[in-house]
Amino acid sequence: MHSLRIGHGYDVHQLVYKRDLIIGGVKIPFEKGLQGHSDADVLLHAIADAILGALGLGDIGHAFPDTDTATLGIASTEILSDIYKKMLEQGYEISNIDTTIMAEKPKMSPHLSRMKGNIAYVLNTRPGNINIKATTTEKLGFIGRSEGIASEAVVLLSRIEKESQK
Amino acid sequence: MHSLRIGHGYDVHQLVYKRDLIIGGVKIPFEKGLQGHSDADVLLHAIADAILGALGLGDIGHAFPDTDTATLGIASTEILSDIYKKMLEQGYEISNIDTTIMAEKPKMSPHLSRMKGNIAYVLNTRPGNINIKATTTEKLGFIGRSEGIASEAVVLLSRIEKESQK
Amino acid sequence: MHSLRIGHGYDVHQLVYKRDLIIGGVKIPFEKGLQGHSDADVLLHAIADAILGALGLGDIGHAFPDTDTATLGIASTEILSDIYKKMLEQGYEISNIDTTIMAEKPKMSPHLSRMKGNIAYVLNTRPGNINIKATTTEKLGFIGRSEGIASEAVVLLSRIEKESQK
Ligand SMILES: [Zn+2]
Ligand SMILES: [Zn+2]
Ligand SMILES: [Zn+2]
Repeated sequence: MHSLRIGHGYDVHQLVYKRDLIIGGVKIPFEKGLQGHSDADVLLHAIADAILGALGLGDIGHAFPDTDTATLGIASTEILSDIYKKMLEQGYEISNIDTTIMAEKPKMSPHLSRMKGNIAYVLNTRPGNINIKATTTEKLGFIGRSEGIASEAVVLLSRIEKESQK
Repeated sequence: MHSLRIGHGYDVHQLVYKRDLIIGGVKIPFEKGLQGHSDADVLLHAIADAILGALGLGDIGHAFPDTDTATLGIASTEILSDIYKKMLEQGYEISNIDTTIMAEKPKMSPHLSRMKGNIAYVLNTRPGNINIKATTTEKLGFIGRSEGIASEAVVLLSRIEKESQK
Repeated sequence: MHSLRIGHGYDVHQLVYKRDLIIGGVKIPFEKGLQGHSDADVLLHAIADAILGALGLGDIGHAFPDTDTATLGIASTEILSDIYKKMLEQGYEISNIDTTIMAEKPKMSPHLSRMKGNIAYVLNTRPGNINIKATTTEKLGFIGRSEGIASEAVVLLSRIEKESQK
């Protein structure tokens, strides 16, 4: 296995009434929230998928089936924390992560710094290794019509160098 | 040229009647199939584009024009095999590949293992270097309406080290 | 910080009448153009976002707010040039970039070579380190209905080795 691994994740959830909007582990004040089995944190799911993908471990739907009542309504920070442990077991660490939140509204900019802190904390890496971009789709498509919010993530993982190998 | 190269591919095909559904080289039982000049294997096309992209060789539409009657209806494993040869000629090998199939239905999970084996075989790499994720788009957009199936792929290629350089 | 950094960018703009169509710094003859604050060069914006993302510097909307009248109507080559300077300041250079233009029409192929030259020039790298793919979405979705054009980019940046470190 090479010392660097690439991963990519894409996730989307429907915007519906009577759900909290949780993105990057931050509860964002908004009239709607994302529908899903867990807290539907579309950003953390894209990151989780990208890490699993880089490790060759399938995807989040396989690792955390939405038919599992034990994970109903859980915070996605717990899911990501579990995937962090898998990454450590495989001997890898975060090199860097770049992400994009695609949402027509609400404004993400006031919350990006806290999201970044949450993700860096769970993945035990510096906030400077996590980047979050936010974009609309210029009123086009299902995101432009605010029917849902999507996220995309790319990750670069590097093998942890052991002391004895240095 | 650096020793590592990144590539990204995105492909989409319409779901229509009277076509086989071939994804990752696997014929999947379903009432519809993907429309296209070749067998329309949306996953292999995304991977092919990502490898060509990493090598700086344009895209699959340029390498295999859909105006070429010689490639009408061919298996995309042949296309990918040809691109594998181009990669070897340029002195690169697969570091790892991470992919996502975006389809509302049918279920991809029973077929992922065979797809992975097919791709690893054609690209002459270990199955552990190939990852396939499957996701719906939660009934949103053209994928959510089952009008089409899309795939996305990222690849990391590494320059093959020559014996004399070791 | 590791010596390699990954970034990803996605951008979309609406196709409207009475605007020039500028993609990759090339003015493409077409009945419509892309709507936006700057020249709305969807390809250069995706690349700009990917580089900012790799550097952990947020996104183009943060670096170049569309409320800034100083950037109204500017060429996106200027935006990308500014981001190139940020990259140099951080001590990084382009390893390689792979991009995709998603448009139902017009045909991009006659213009790809000039786009590649423009991008390589602004980012001070070899054209062989820049790849541009063009695809339709097979008449599906907002791109398939020609309501807009999207672009996606992945970049791999590498830390510039200092003479004294060699
Ligand atoms: Zn999700
Ligand atoms: Zn295709
Ligand atoms: Zn833009």
